[in-house]
Amino acid sequence: MIVRHKPGFLELLIATHGSVLPRILPRIAVLTALAALLVWVDVDMIALPHTNAAPFAVFGVALSLFLGFRNNAAYDRWWEGRKLWGQLVADMRALGRDVALFLPAEYQRRPLRLALAFIHLHRANLRRLSQDEAGHAWLDDGDDLRAVPHPPCAALDLMTRHMVTHAPDGFAKKALSERIGSITLAQAGCERIAATPLPFVYSLLVFRTTYLYCLLFPFSLIEGAGWMTPLFVAIVAYVFFGLAEVTEELSNPFGKTVNGLPLDAMCRTIEISLLTQMGEDAPAPLQPDGYYLS
Amino acid sequence: MIVRHKPGFLELLIATHGSVLPRILPRIAVLTALAALLVWVDVDMIALPHTNAAPFAVFGVALSLFLGFRNNAAYDRWWEGRKLWGQLVADMRALGRDVALFLPAEYQRRPLRLALAFIHLHRANLRRLSQDEAGHAWLDDGDDLRAVPHPPCAALDLMTRHMVTHAPDGFAKKALSERIGSITLAQAGCERIAATPLPFVYSLLVFRTTYLYCLLFPFSLIEGAGWMTPLFVAIVAYVFFGLAEVTEELSNPFGKTVNGLPLDAMCRTIEISLLTQMGEDAPAPLQPDGYYLS
Amino acid sequence: MIVRHKPGFLELLIATHGSVLPRILPRIAVLTALAALLVWVDVDMIALPHTNAAPFAVFGVALSLFLGFRNNAAYDRWWEGRKLWGQLVADMRALGRDVALFLPAEYQRRPLRLALAFIHLHRANLRRLSQDEAGHAWLDDGDDLRAVPHPPCAALDLMTRHMVTHAPDGFAKKALSERIGSITLAQAGCERIAATPLPFVYSLLVFRTTYLYCLLFPFSLIEGAGWMTPLFVAIVAYVFFGLAEVTEELSNPFGKTVNGLPLDAMCRTIEISLLTQMGEDAPAPLQPDGYYLS
Amino acid sequence: MIVRHKPGFLELLIATHGSVLPRILPRIAVLTALAALLVWVDVDMIALPHTNAAPFAVFGVALSLFLGFRNNAAYDRWWEGRKLWGQLVADMRALGRDVALFLPAEYQRRPLRLALAFIHLHRANLRRLSQDEAGHAWLDDGDDLRAVPHPPCAALDLMTRHMVTHAPDGFAKKALSERIGSITLAQAGCERIAATPLPFVYSLLVFRTTYLYCLLFPFSLIEGAGWMTPLFVAIVAYVFFGLAEVTEELSNPFGKTVNGLPLDAMCRTIEISLLTQMGEDAPAPLQPDGYYLS
Amino acid sequence: MIVRHKPGFLELLIATHGSVLPRILPRIAVLTALAALLVWVDVDMIALPHTNAAPFAVFGVALSLFLGFRNNAAYDRWWEGRKLWGQLVADMRALGRDVALFLPAEYQRRPLRLALAFIHLHRANLRRLSQDEAGHAWLDDGDDLRAVPHPPCAALDLMTRHMVTHAPDGFAKKALSERIGSITLAQAGCERIAATPLPFVYSLLVFRTTYLYCLLFPFSLIEGAGWMTPLFVAIVAYVFFGLAEVTEELSNPFGKTVNGLPLDAMCRTIEISLLTQMGEDAPAPLQPDGYYLS
Repeated sequence: MIVRHKPGFLELLIATHGSVLPRILPRIAVLTALAALLVWVDVDMIALPHTNAAPFAVFGVALSLFLGFRNNAAYDRWWEGRKLWGQLVADMRALGRDVALFLPAEYQRRPLRLALAFIHLHRANLRRLSQDEAGHAWLDDGDDLRAVPHPPCAALDLMTRHMVTHAPDGFAKKALSERIGSITLAQAGCERIAATPLPFVYSLLVFRTTYLYCLLFPFSLIEGAGWMTPLFVAIVAYVFFGLAEVTEELSNPFGKTVNGLPLDAMCRTIEISLLTQMGEDAPAPLQPDGYYLS
Repeated sequence: MIVRHKPGFLELLIATHGSVLPRILPRIAVLTALAALLVWVDVDMIALPHTNAAPFAVFGVALSLFLGFRNNAAYDRWWEGRKLWGQLVADMRALGRDVALFLPAEYQRRPLRLALAFIHLHRANLRRLSQDEAGHAWLDDGDDLRAVPHPPCAALDLMTRHMVTHAPDGFAKKALSERIGSITLAQAGCERIAATPLPFVYSLLVFRTTYLYCLLFPFSLIEGAGWMTPLFVAIVAYVFFGLAEVTEELSNPFGKTVNGLPLDAMCRTIEISLLTQMGEDAPAPLQPDGYYLS
Repeated sequence: MIVRHKPGFLELLIATHGSVLPRILPRIAVLTALAALLVWVDVDMIALPHTNAAPFAVFGVALSLFLGFRNNAAYDRWWEGRKLWGQLVADMRALGRDVALFLPAEYQRRPLRLALAFIHLHRANLRRLSQDEAGHAWLDDGDDLRAVPHPPCAALDLMTRHMVTHAPDGFAKKALSERIGSITLAQAGCERIAATPLPFVYSLLVFRTTYLYCLLFPFSLIEGAGWMTPLFVAIVAYVFFGLAEVTEELSNPFGKTVNGLPLDAMCRTIEISLLTQMGEDAPAPLQPDGYYLS
Repeated sequence: MIVRHKPGFLELLIATHGSVLPRILPRIAVLTALAALLVWVDVDMIALPHTNAAPFAVFGVALSLFLGFRNNAAYDRWWEGRKLWGQLVADMRALGRDVALFLPAEYQRRPLRLALAFIHLHRANLRRLSQDEAGHAWLDDGDDLRAVPHPPCAALDLMTRHMVTHAPDGFAKKALSERIGSITLAQAGCERIAATPLPFVYSLLVFRTTYLYCLLFPFSLIEGAGWMTPLFVAIVAYVFFGLAEVTEELSNPFGKTVNGLPLDAMCRTIEISLLTQMGEDAPAPLQPDGYYLS
Repeated sequence: MIVRHKPGFLELLIATHGSVLPRILPRIAVLTALAALLVWVDVDMIALPHTNAAPFAVFGVALSLFLGFRNNAAYDRWWEGRKLWGQLVADMRALGRDVALFLPAEYQRRPLRLALAFIHLHRANLRRLSQDEAGHAWLDDGDDLRAVPHPPCAALDLMTRHMVTHAPDGFAKKALSERIGSITLAQAGCERIAATPLPFVYSLLVFRTTYLYCLLFPFSLIEGAGWMTPLFVAIVAYVFFGLAEVTEELSNPFGKTVNGLPLDAMCRTIEISLLTQMGEDAPAPLQPDGYYLS
């Protein structure tokens, strides 16, 4: 995630970090060149058919509708992903307090370490990092979760088994079962977003329509805009492809892209909270690296 | 559900799997041919009345409004269906932990098997698969749910009856009643979506308006676009019918269409979780078959 | 509610059931005739003032904004009403299970019969059916709720009084109080929708603006569309009045209109669930009558 | 709140109750007169600069965006206010049942009277009615809440103190603490809406832009519409100022305006429910007075 | 936050407090001057290329889409921030009542003082006020939270530790654990909004597109609007930059800007509630200072 304030005027001109411009530049260049070619043919060679603006108004409204929908849906996924992790941060802190309230002092340490294992295994699972060792480092010697079908679930299962043995009464069991249930729900929510992409058919509709639009737009512009046509095509391509790229990126909030959510930093936040509750030294919060927080 | 990344340039040109193009091609072809006929009549035979773009601008805005609304409503149904199944996944995992926490060891196996029966019966109920045997396979010998009025509910009733007999105290009853209540709510939510289609009147309004639009559009285009008229009609028909088809499909998220939710895969996810908790071997996750996950 | 699949081509042409066309036809006819009259005056008598399309573009955007908002608000009311009834279905099933879990066997029958009385009284209350006897039929002899100020609430009060006497412990009281509280909330939600119409001022704004639009639109069309003007006016009137009627109907989801929610069918669903739980024969689900489910 | 069905044709022409027309008529008249003056100058005196429709299209889209957003935000506030009061109605009914379930018979009366005091004090607090006596009338002799900093909170504090003394066990305390917590949340939600207006800057943006639009619009219309210009300006002013006024009113849902929520009627609904539960005679529901329900 | 009623006509003309006009005036002036220069060149020097309105219509729709999205997202963040603080107000009042219900009288004072410490530390944390002493003032002598990694969390940890020692039974532990869990969730929600800005890429897209639009717009206006061109550019720049600034400000709801949320006033509200519950004198509510409530 890019952590940055409102761009100043200069940054607007040159900022590329966090911008999608570099990625869509080739497409813009090709479409602009095609538009320039068409103007050259029309002006210097043979007159091309000119159309008025009417079909493009309708077309543009439809394209805005597609892009607007996809943008909203993608941002909602991104923001819901962030909300679920915020829920996890809250649940982890509350778990620490529940453990202090309901478990005998000598059995409080293990569930918190399992919680830290869970959150890292969950992060690795969402990002498909099969080699990530951060979660396993919090496990005790006998707990090897490398071979289980679903490591984060297995960590929560271990936590439950600890409660079965050490929860002193029904209140403790009830409170801890509710807390683990709430963690389970947030976890399943994240897995839902990670496993269910936006319907593929929208990508097809959006990209096909955007290409068609940019290819045909010059025929309506040449008469009115002449040699400014390529400029307008470039801007329209920038606006539409730019938005399409942003939505593509935001709709996968757990990726390690520049607009992905800072899962590492949030895991660190949870480590700080739980280690403090365990009476251990907490590490410092993660800092952005050149505006980028991983 | 189609599981696929951002389409590359080539895929944009040729992808048909997950695309609605094949289904709407006949309609596009007919409307395009009609438009070509009108141009031919206008150019070579007798001049047709030409209209300016004004009525179509209004028309187009209204059509966008209809299609935009229907698209949002359909996607919300699809995504809510997915959320409810995510809730079921979480509830099933939490049920496994609740059973471990609150029931004596010898009575933990049956409720989890009934949960697996429930989830398959629920899937079969949503997809109206009256012959599906996957749910019944998890039932014990004495439990025949083939003749009951509502099999998934009956599975949960059996689970409740098991608790009545074997829950050791009030805490256990309370915790398991809350969990089953949460499952019941997600189940009723799915049944709501499956049983309540989008109001039929919207389909009539959208399709009638789209046909009228595409039939009359040439009269406003001929003057400005000439022989490019059929091309524009084809594109507009593609955009509008394409979106109308997508929304039709997404609004029935439990169907077995290419954009339907992967209920089979989610049932498998639940099987993996519960079988692991029961200490049995878990099957592998379902894999997409040529991008399609059922 | 109309239960029907995607309309085929023929149905699009002729379907009137579920369509709003019959109801708005008179208005469309009058406005179309007026437009034809204006064209006739302009062509054959004296030239009328012609305006360009500019004011109508703004006008149309504003009208779309009004209609779009009203449509969203109305559909949200309809869908929220359906959600609340889905919640009631779930709560009723869960109540049956809670009663089995927490009440002694000999006291389980009465609360379920009171629940069936409640759901029918609630339906009659929402639809303002003062003569409906379905709810009273489930009451015991001594329970006459015909004269109480609010019959559905009184049924829940009776259920509570039953718990006061027969709930064996605090867990039972707590669980059943939570369940009845959840039913109460869904009930109050339905009453909220039934008692609070969309602000009346929107109806005035929408209908006044639509009439003005359709009356003035010909002045901008005559020049560009000539004798096609009445056709366009008819379509625009169809689109705008059609949507206005749909929203009017959907915003009252508990009415017995063709787009109203199938409360009868949902009461039957609840009867099937609770009678099964009571070990009695359940009736068959309600079937649509000519696509219409009441 | 205006309680009224769909307006008939005649009502559309003349209805002023619930309409914002009277309030915005002066502004419409001034702007229309200005437009007429401009046409007169242009036609009879000296030619004014004419502009085409392009800037107004953009302008109109932006204005629609502002008004659309403000309208949605205002309606959401209104509807959320209604939802919160619906929640209060449900919580009050549920409180009556909780009191019956968990408190000894001789201590059930006082909390319900305190609840009635609370709801009236809450209403008076939201509407800033410092002289309203309806809440104090339900208090016992020793309870004077006239001088406390926050009377509705003080009523709930008294209710809590009653529970501290008379709740017989932990289940009762837990159940009633949850119920009072839920009432507290709905109360704080209402206070949030009452204390936090829509950001003032939106009012400035919307009204300034609307005035500018209506003042400049004639320059683009004169050429195309001639002496119909004032008519179009009047309609556009009606549409835009009308919507702006409606949103202003709806965004303050607890005011005593014609579109405010019927708090008096809802307090009466609660009185009916609680008095019935206390076994006392309930008053009749409030009826609208000339379509207006206070 | 600006607390103010609907602006009167005069205020519309001159209000600057709460307006974004002062901040965007330089940009508007520069763009207007550029537009005037272009007109002067076109009229008096050499003819510039003129374009028709078509590209700007599409452009304007896209810009509205961006700005509309960003505006909705920013307002949602602002309103969600306010909701979370409303939740905190409710939770704090409910905490006071829970403490009275569940803790022995001699242990009720400390948790409420810790709650006041928490809310001020939370406010200081959200606003990044490292020197703010208001929270520490409520702590007892032995509790120094100046050096801990996360002071608001530490205050809640102290509260939990107090419960561990002094909660008399499981009901008390359960009730207070749920209340603290709810506070933790609202706290994490606020931190989520404060730590996660809107994706930076939207700022780039919006500002770049707005500048391009305002720079190129004159080429389409000169022919139609002549010397009115700079006026229209000024208005369009006012509308688009104004909205962009508002959204920038609202998307950071915890800042001390004129549109930030009144955290000081809400902390005071909580102080009044809790001090009243502790039987101490409550301070007066904070009053706006020249319409501004901090």
